[in-house]
Amino acid sequence: MNDPQESLAVQEILRNRASLRKYAQRPLDEKDVNLIVEAAMRAPTAGNMMMYSMIIVSDQNLKEQLSVTCDHQPFIAKAPLVIIFLSDLQRWFDYYHKSGVEDFCLKQGIEFTGPDEADLLLSSCDALIAAQNAVIAAEALGIGSCYIGDIMENYEIHQTLLDLPPFVFPISMVCFGYYPENERPRPRERFDSRYIVHENKYRRLTNQDLEAMLASRSAGFDPHNSFAAENYGQWMYAKKTGASFSVEMARSVRKALENWRGKQYKPTE
Amino acid sequence: MNDPQESLAVQEILRNRASLRKYAQRPLDEKDVNLIVEAAMRAPTAGNMMMYSMIIVSDQNLKEQLSVTCDHQPFIAKAPLVIIFLSDLQRWFDYYHKSGVEDFCLKQGIEFTGPDEADLLLSSCDALIAAQNAVIAAEALGIGSCYIGDIMENYEIHQTLLDLPPFVFPISMVCFGYYPENERPRPRERFDSRYIVHENKYRRLTNQDLEAMLASRSAGFDPHNSFAAENYGQWMYAKKTGASFSVEMARSVRKALENWRGKQYKPTE
Repeated sequence: MNDPQESLAVQEILRNRASLRKYAQRPLDEKDVNLIVEAAMRAPTAGNMMMYSMIIVSDQNLKEQLSVTCDHQPFIAKAPLVIIFLSDLQRWFDYYHKSGVEDFCLKQGIEFTGPDEADLLLSSCDALIAAQNAVIAAEALGIGSCYIGDIMENYEIHQTLLDLPPFVFPISMVCFGYYPENERPRPRERFDSRYIVHENKYRRLTNQDLEAMLASRSAGFDPHNSFAAENYGQWMYAKKTGASFSVEMARSVRKALENWRGKQYKPTE
Repeated sequence: MNDPQESLAVQEILRNRASLRKYAQRPLDEKDVNLIVEAAMRAPTAGNMMMYSMIIVSDQNLKEQLSVTCDHQPFIAKAPLVIIFLSDLQRWFDYYHKSGVEDFCLKQGIEFTGPDEADLLLSSCDALIAAQNAVIAAEALGIGSCYIGDIMENYEIHQTLLDLPPFVFPISMVCFGYYPENERPRPRERFDSRYIVHENKYRRLTNQDLEAMLASRSAGFDPHNSFAAENYGQWMYAKKTGASFSVEMARSVRKALENWRGKQYKPTE
């Protein structure tokens, strides 16, 4: 389709969306949930293999646990709909095992390897593309959303909580809920496209570029901050990249990656 | 917004989209390209940090090289618009370095680590969410698209071709072009949602489930196939998961990951 009116409507949705962390306190219509899930499942997927799964979190107790394990964000427990997006090679490798692929490889001189790092990345692409379809479908239904990357933390706890087999990794989580009346978060400023969009080659930014790119953000830097940071760069490192949740995410992902080394797949795992 | 007509239009776009590999042979309007890029840049991003970049491939020679290095897919060279989506921590770490974050960490007793595996995953989430916004914006403009996961192969070659610094990884590529007249690929069948969507806990599929999930696909299995596969599972492994492009992707990603070990960041790299 390219009806100009409809096209404009889509552009508006994409342009005006901002993460929503405060939801109208009513459950989502089942019809809307189905449309969101259906939209996710129509997302493009590598080789039509659907190397992802979704877990709809309906149990309030589970939501509350996740609101703690995902960097202590109470609003998660108040989200009417929570969906966890999983990178999933378990299904295919269970099917391969059932199909005698190990023997087949031996006979044909093909090397058989279990899920590897590339499989994790490719299946994570599948999962995120599906997640964003869900987010946009929701937006069109008047349902706001917020991504929770913190689901990558506490891998062992989430593995137990959610019964995850070894080749399933929770790559993202999304909270959904209707917009509260007359409350819409305003889209936040993005960096100028000159720093994000390149042509034909990557252009590494100079110090001057970096300064200019961050000028409006660093202008709000408070020299009397709790991190004793002397500038905005130090403050951002302390607040984000070097913060305890990031340290935990690094540990957790490294632990999860142990399963994605292309080692022999063991069906009993 | 939740105008029912507009909502329906969005659902239709998401429902009817299929990967397009044959494009109308006319360049994209600059206005449309701008709308696509703008939509990508409005995508949600962790902490509003925009840990991704885009490279618009306009150079025909570069397109042709990519059509070879991305698993020999000639249609890539014929795509009027090609965008590479990059997981990017280089910008932030260059800014951190410029801001004296290493010294700050030393003084404050915070451990300073370079980009790690979790940073790669989180920035890949950013990149893919942006990519799917681009895909949907395009669709609404009558522009079809196709994801190319194969950009993850041949890491060293792409690093050289695209001038990628160490903390920039090409996680996906998308080809775009107007639909050819009266030609629209039909959406492909997806697995039944009962195998993809779980509630509260992951449900590992039984052999019976797997059989049922793949019944319609495995029905088309040809016992006289070039892989000497005896069933559909063996055929899929030989065709996809164990194929030479997958072996290359595994090698390539493992090579790229060497940069994402949280080692000390060296600004001169």
